[in-house]
Amino acid sequence: MMEQKRKSEKAILERRVKLTGMGKALAGKKVCFGDQTRYRLLSGQTILDLAVEAAGQALMNAGVRIEEIDCIVCAMATPLQAIPCNAALVHERMAKGLSIPAVDINTTCTSFISAVDIFSCLVDIGRYERVLILSGDTASAALNPGQKESFELFSDGAAACVLERAEEKEGSKVIYSRQITWSEGAHDTEIRGGCGLMPSFCMDDKNREDYYFDMKGHRILKLCARRLPDFVEGCLREAQVSREEIHMVIPHQASRALGMIMPRLGFSKEKYIDKVALYGNMVSASIPFVLCEAVETGKIRRGDLLLLIGTAAGLTVNFMLIRY
Amino acid sequence: MMEQKRKSEKAILERRVKLTGMGKALAGKKVCFGDQTRYRLLSGQTILDLAVEAAGQALMNAGVRIEEIDCIVCAMATPLQAIPCNAALVHERMAKGLSIPAVDINTTCTSFISAVDIFSCLVDIGRYERVLILSGDTASAALNPGQKESFELFSDGAAACVLERAEEKEGSKVIYSRQITWSEGAHDTEIRGGCGLMPSFCMDDKNREDYYFDMKGHRILKLCARRLPDFVEGCLREAQVSREEIHMVIPHQASRALGMIMPRLGFSKEKYIDKVALYGNMVSASIPFVLCEAVETGKIRRGDLLLLIGTAAGLTVNFMLIRY
Repeated sequence: MMEQKRKSEKAILERRVKLTGMGKALAGKKVCFGDQTRYRLLSGQTILDLAVEAAGQALMNAGVRIEEIDCIVCAMATPLQAIPCNAALVHERMAKGLSIPAVDINTTCTSFISAVDIFSCLVDIGRYERVLILSGDTASAALNPGQKESFELFSDGAAACVLERAEEKEGSKVIYSRQITWSEGAHDTEIRGGCGLMPSFCMDDKNREDYYFDMKGHRILKLCARRLPDFVEGCLREAQVSREEIHMVIPHQASRALGMIMPRLGFSKEKYIDKVALYGNMVSASIPFVLCEAVETGKIRRGDLLLLIGTAAGLTVNFMLIRY
Repeated sequence: MMEQKRKSEKAILERRVKLTGMGKALAGKKVCFGDQTRYRLLSGQTILDLAVEAAGQALMNAGVRIEEIDCIVCAMATPLQAIPCNAALVHERMAKGLSIPAVDINTTCTSFISAVDIFSCLVDIGRYERVLILSGDTASAALNPGQKESFELFSDGAAACVLERAEEKEGSKVIYSRQITWSEGAHDTEIRGGCGLMPSFCMDDKNREDYYFDMKGHRILKLCARRLPDFVEGCLREAQVSREEIHMVIPHQASRALGMIMPRLGFSKEKYIDKVALYGNMVSASIPFVLCEAVETGKIRRGDLLLLIGTAAGLTVNFMLIRY
């Protein structure tokens, strides 16, 4: 089945924006499961600490001060508190006394791509000129020791970037972006308890499992294997971009199945970044974290055509082509 | 102290968009505190039910089917579940089988204004042509019976709208929008527990209060009284709009102090909508709910110049002028 694109949606839409600085931070405790390395928060350390650290690096690398940021955007999968939004808590740590606006964008694991998609439009239109985007989640807060598959998969990490208007001659831009949600998979990845539908007060011995992260890996894989190839094919065709033209694919580091899914999407091993063995799944931070690392190590250079792609709880899929 | 506006932010920015249909829904249980009426969810009823009901009305009033919506946007203050995002859960109820994208925008109580601010840019640029925005929160899930001020203030309700591209001759548009966050007030309105920083598993007899909604009303009032008048004055001056030109102000129904704050901002009783006695504070649903009601009763007509304004946990302030 081909994914029907709504006629009124524009996926090919150039936005002259540039990631001018990035940063990343890992939780302090290293744990190993066989050949897989994971990171968990130290006692007293919070994901807010890591996000602020990553954002500080991003600002430094972009050569701007927090005062020069027009909007603080948290692109995180999970709330730090039920109220206020995450961006207000980041604001308190980084921008207290300034009146920079703060807003959360959430499509779970692909929140970073969604935030770049949305805010590249705002930057293009001039609503804001320079925004700070932060990602990161306390994965370890809700891992179920009884669910080996997810317990041994996640890490706590954060990443951030400064996104700003690019000069025409620079060539940096968002070229194409599409996002879809297949809610047949809405309950394949979830934390049912702790919020509005099932508050903390309702937890008892019988429903305790509902407050843990719950992943039905085989169901997600099945849904993705069945529908993802056609979706990706359709996007590439519409964008008129071939796999050969793409310099590097930065996929969400969803699981060890990455090495199985990516070839099915037509991308060979040297074409995409797979750091699952080294870092695991860092939820919303995965994509910006490995992107940041690839920039730092010179694997990605200015002018490269990049594909950011990922599946997220929802089930949401994001596909975005950018000229870095 | 005058609020410093960042030079790189554009607040005057016309976006040709139109609210083509609205809807609203109230929780089924009516409770009274003196002359104040509040609504709380019936057993078995969820805020998702109300949001979907309101969205159904919005679609009907806009004369469109869900298949014609390009993006489902949840502009809610609180998560239904920690994972996935609210919009994915709405998608499951309204758009299962369709691949419409789903995303959450959160600036707590003013999320609706933020979503209109952000998505009017995306609609203007053509990223999407028609979006469905839903607001609503389970306020009653976290009310502390020991904190009379907040316990007797909130209601459970939902509201929704269809936002789409307007024809030039129609004249409907967003004219001006500004959003700021003063994180000095980050902890004046909060629910500390239940999520990443303080998971449900950490609740014990000593910290149980942290899982309730906690509002320091006097602190918020003090911060607003001190800084809001200058902010509003600056916005009106920049927009070159006088109070007389504004047909109706739709403020967030924050509390009974509305009748004290609004005159300080220069708006007399007949100039703004105050339904606090009738409905209380419906969190993110307050603004779209009273806007929807005013449209239904003919208090607001096409072509009217409206000011949507509100303060939210964060502390975030939104100010938006629209030609309805």
